[in-house]
Amino acid sequence: MPIYQAPARDLRFVINEMIDLENYNNLPGFEAVSSDLVDTVVNEAGKFCAEVLFPLNEVGDREGCTRHDDGSVTTPTGFKEAFQQYREAGWGTLSSPEEFGGQGLPHVLGFVVEELMGSSNQAFAMYPGLTTGATAAILAKGSEEQKATYAPKMISGQWTGTMNLTEPHCGTDLGLIRTKAEPQADGSFAITGTKIFISSGEHDMAENIIHLVLAKTPGAPDSSKGISLFIVPKFILNEDGTPGERNTLSCGSIEEKMGIHGNSTCVMNYDGAKGWMVGEENKGLAAMFIMMNAARLGVGIQGLAQAEVAYQNAVAYAKDRRQGRALTGPVSPDEKADSIFVHPDVRRMMMDGKAFTEAQRALYLYGGLLVDLEHAAQTEEERQEADDLLGLLTPVLKGYGTDKGYDVATNMQQVFGGHGYIEEWGVSQYVRDVRIAMIYEGTNGIQAMDLCGRKLAANGGRAIQLFFAKVDETIAEAKQDETLAPIAEKIEKANGELKAATMWFMQNAMANPDHLGAGAHHYMHIMGIVAHGWMWLRMAKTAQDKLAEGTTDTAFYEAKITTARYFADRFTPDAGSLRRRIETGADSMMELSVEAFERAA
Amino acid sequence: MPIYQAPARDLRFVINEMIDLENYNNLPGFEAVSSDLVDTVVNEAGKFCAEVLFPLNEVGDREGCTRHDDGSVTTPTGFKEAFQQYREAGWGTLSSPEEFGGQGLPHVLGFVVEELMGSSNQAFAMYPGLTTGATAAILAKGSEEQKATYAPKMISGQWTGTMNLTEPHCGTDLGLIRTKAEPQADGSFAITGTKIFISSGEHDMAENIIHLVLAKTPGAPDSSKGISLFIVPKFILNEDGTPGERNTLSCGSIEEKMGIHGNSTCVMNYDGAKGWMVGEENKGLAAMFIMMNAARLGVGIQGLAQAEVAYQNAVAYAKDRRQGRALTGPVSPDEKADSIFVHPDVRRMMMDGKAFTEAQRALYLYGGLLVDLEHAAQTEEERQEADDLLGLLTPVLKGYGTDKGYDVATNMQQVFGGHGYIEEWGVSQYVRDVRIAMIYEGTNGIQAMDLCGRKLAANGGRAIQLFFAKVDETIAEAKQDETLAPIAEKIEKANGELKAATMWFMQNAMANPDHLGAGAHHYMHIMGIVAHGWMWLRMAKTAQDKLAEGTTDTAFYEAKITTARYFADRFTPDAGSLRRRIETGADSMMELSVEAFERAA
Repeated sequence: MPIYQAPARDLRFVINEMIDLENYNNLPGFEAVSSDLVDTVVNEAGKFCAEVLFPLNEVGDREGCTRHDDGSVTTPTGFKEAFQQYREAGWGTLSSPEEFGGQGLPHVLGFVVEELMGSSNQAFAMYPGLTTGATAAILAKGSEEQKATYAPKMISGQWTGTMNLTEPHCGTDLGLIRTKAEPQADGSFAITGTKIFISSGEHDMAENIIHLVLAKTPGAPDSSKGISLFIVPKFILNEDGTPGERNTLSCGSIEEKMGIHGNSTCVMNYDGAKGWMVGEENKGLAAMFIMMNAARLGVGIQGLAQAEVAYQNAVAYAKDRRQGRALTGPVSPDEKADSIFVHPDVRRMMMDGKAFTEAQRALYLYGGLLVDLEHAAQTEEERQEADDLLGLLTPVLKGYGTDKGYDVATNMQQVFGGHGYIEEWGVSQYVRDVRIAMIYEGTNGIQAMDLCGRKLAANGGRAIQLFFAKVDETIAEAKQDETLAPIAEKIEKANGELKAATMWFMQNAMANPDHLGAGAHHYMHIMGIVAHGWMWLRMAKTAQDKLAEGTTDTAFYEAKITTARYFADRFTPDAGSLRRRIETGADSMMELSVEAFERAA
Repeated sequence: MPIYQAPARDLRFVINEMIDLENYNNLPGFEAVSSDLVDTVVNEAGKFCAEVLFPLNEVGDREGCTRHDDGSVTTPTGFKEAFQQYREAGWGTLSSPEEFGGQGLPHVLGFVVEELMGSSNQAFAMYPGLTTGATAAILAKGSEEQKATYAPKMISGQWTGTMNLTEPHCGTDLGLIRTKAEPQADGSFAITGTKIFISSGEHDMAENIIHLVLAKTPGAPDSSKGISLFIVPKFILNEDGTPGERNTLSCGSIEEKMGIHGNSTCVMNYDGAKGWMVGEENKGLAAMFIMMNAARLGVGIQGLAQAEVAYQNAVAYAKDRRQGRALTGPVSPDEKADSIFVHPDVRRMMMDGKAFTEAQRALYLYGGLLVDLEHAAQTEEERQEADDLLGLLTPVLKGYGTDKGYDVATNMQQVFGGHGYIEEWGVSQYVRDVRIAMIYEGTNGIQAMDLCGRKLAANGGRAIQLFFAKVDETIAEAKQDETLAPIAEKIEKANGELKAATMWFMQNAMANPDHLGAGAHHYMHIMGIVAHGWMWLRMAKTAQDKLAEGTTDTAFYEAKITTARYFADRFTPDAGSLRRRIETGADSMMELSVEAFERAA
């Protein structure tokens, strides 16, 4: 039987001890924050996720969603009731603005709920997850009337939202979209076209679904500069704001996918559906990026979330499973075999899982803090710094976080041996579910180009210089401590590789931009290693301080320091080989003709 | 629609040009070998696989196998008929001994068929694949009567075979098995116990199934030294050798798996079933290793096979799919977007796929040659060398080959973007199917320990020294050529890392064997890089020679040299970081208590 419990101690460690969230309570929205509040959110959300959502995870995988002939969709058994509970508990309202019915708490807390929901049931979590993204776009770009009409009910979970970007012939390159928006006499638009891969596109969990749809108005430029964003509700609202007439849009089919079967991934047909423009004409892409950036952080959390639940199950399995003997002699001589935990190769995978999940958790929570600081920090300089760092770290959290999340989930499956390949142990589902995270909200190749082609060079490299300064500061501090110094030196070396790779791009990408493209993915991984290494140094320092103060939780803090050392030993060396790969440039990569890739008879 | 065609030109290149199989025709079994024969086998087997087996691949995935209440199993639509065609064409007989109805041709040719079948339908290929392993054990350890009774019908495909090792509580550690074998008055044994994960355990494709079962006789030592091997046929043979009475064994259930749904993975219940011992009592493990070694090579081929079909589909998709523009300016200005082949990150994944599949193909074909040379080479020294190299390369072909095969299949899926996650494009199945290859026939962690704990040290390191000598020789030769020299230097550097890692093990593993265990997986990967690099040098040299001779196939040979350069640029740097990881030893990996891995509330 698959298991899951909230990693509550770890969350509290990062939020209350490493980040020390209480320390920010002079900021707006943070006044109510205390370590007690953090504990309550972690415990209660953890309980809800472990007890209500996790038992439905396998149900969702097995049953999937069912589309009926009339285009209606039934979600898996229990999803509707669980969403009702989610709504009543107000888990979707934590970090939403108070003005629209939210609780106005820091994003760190909203992100915690995203992790817990992602681990317990990713397919379920996507229904409210997409809603959060759609709401963010309306709040950022919608009119006052649109905000007042839609946001409160989306925040409360009474209605859900979707993002409609992709069309059959067009994914990343949104300039190619064909969906049309014809202006109507009443100020609305008639939306016509087909959208695919629409997560949560149709379902039975809420009384209305607010689709945010990218479309082109007549005569719009034939490029990404000609896209506008529209609100297209499933039920057109009555004057009093209640759902009324059924709009002319429908789910044409549900995609058969590798995983996340519990989420209804729909082909959506818009047939002159009534829609209202959000923000300015032809500025839809910018509005979409509001959603997208929030969504990318969320997907980075998913990479961790699936790795986490896979890790917890692998730990339980490895502890119980007895095969063979330790290389150094029997550990359990009274048993016929030792637990497989004694085998170094099992340990390697478990330590990789532990080192990744804990660092990615620290990094997303730090990212959550930046989301708030970006708006709420006291000085313009602090807000700017938060914005720069968040922009830089978003593609890393998403791209590195999901690449490694998939690797870790795969390795956790490996710990189970043959049992990992059998669906009843649950871990196959985690691998299948997390696979999508490398693809959606911009493939990881797109994340790499966002990082290297956009974020690195912006404002004369201000963000990356700030990142280096922050990391260097942490390294310098850690080098003062004799336990942490050897760890810090290895992180410093990795950071040196990142600096060298940055320099190489500066010197070579102007002459041939393919040199940048050819190294972008590797660069993103070096930066992931350094960002995680930075978090490990900060966690190790926090643990070291707690041990120095005196604590009864010695084993927990010592494990943090050991894991930091493991990370330094086993994760940082790749920074060097990735840098060497970058420095070979694009020549051998781009030289062949397309025909040379095809197999000859 | 998924596509597949045999990579015929590549196979011919390796067999006829790089290995130059005709050159060995003074060896027994090779007399009939000519490049024409190779072409015929490649073309005809390729045709059968592409036209008959590949169209059933998706059918098998979707339908799976069905167990009926009486324990009988129906395979997916078309499988039975395809197996009849396979049998009639004699594809299973190619490399089997003529004495038992085989064609006695070199294993290289049998391996080619394994690749083509694996690419076109891995779940189907496992039915004859397991039969080959079971037959090998009977031929190696069975009595003359057993060989004569079973081998011809298994080789012809009239009957199939299985391998019954795993039990619910026991996988890798076969010393723990509980299945019992009670001697009977007639010389047979009554076999009782439950076996799990039995591939092709029950089906409707052949008139009999010959189960090879590991079990313990009364009073046998309570360890892996107390295991014996038994032939347990589904239908006990009549005096005339035809299948007669139904044996008391049955399929209890079919496992629900992540992939290879077309293969019936059975829980097999033996209830006093009649069996006959193969070879000596308590020597079953050695007999099982006969099967296992052949099977491991086969699984290494599977890693390639799935990567190959995924690669072919990704090439076709990337060629057709248009999104965005090249970083260096529009390549197809008349179209609204360029083919995604122009994007360096797509190229990176495609070149990785090309570099891996072609090197793994060369390596398994070289392995096939070694299987023959091991028995048929003219001098004892040559036979010994072939045996040493094959033993060393088997875990690398399996472990590195399937780890990378999974990576490549995953990246080929990534090329499809969101479409890769949808089952209709086929590539999700390749990822799900290839996943098992990292697990079965000994997990890749077991392969790494076989390599480092057994093969490296055997005979005073004779095999690895031979490997180094062979690789060094190829490097030295390539360095004479100005085009190949820069490639050779990078392979030489990787080989230097392998030598350093070997030395580090020698100096440290005696003091603490966990140092070996902690580095084994990384060592296997360095050796994979070096072995593939060696193959790339040999392929590049062959191509260079052909170009020097003058050829009309210039583009093909030039692509080989470019791909060799890409491999040297992008694959070899990891050898350095893996070596550095090994040299950090086991300390931080093994330090934590098991409890430290569990999440605290």
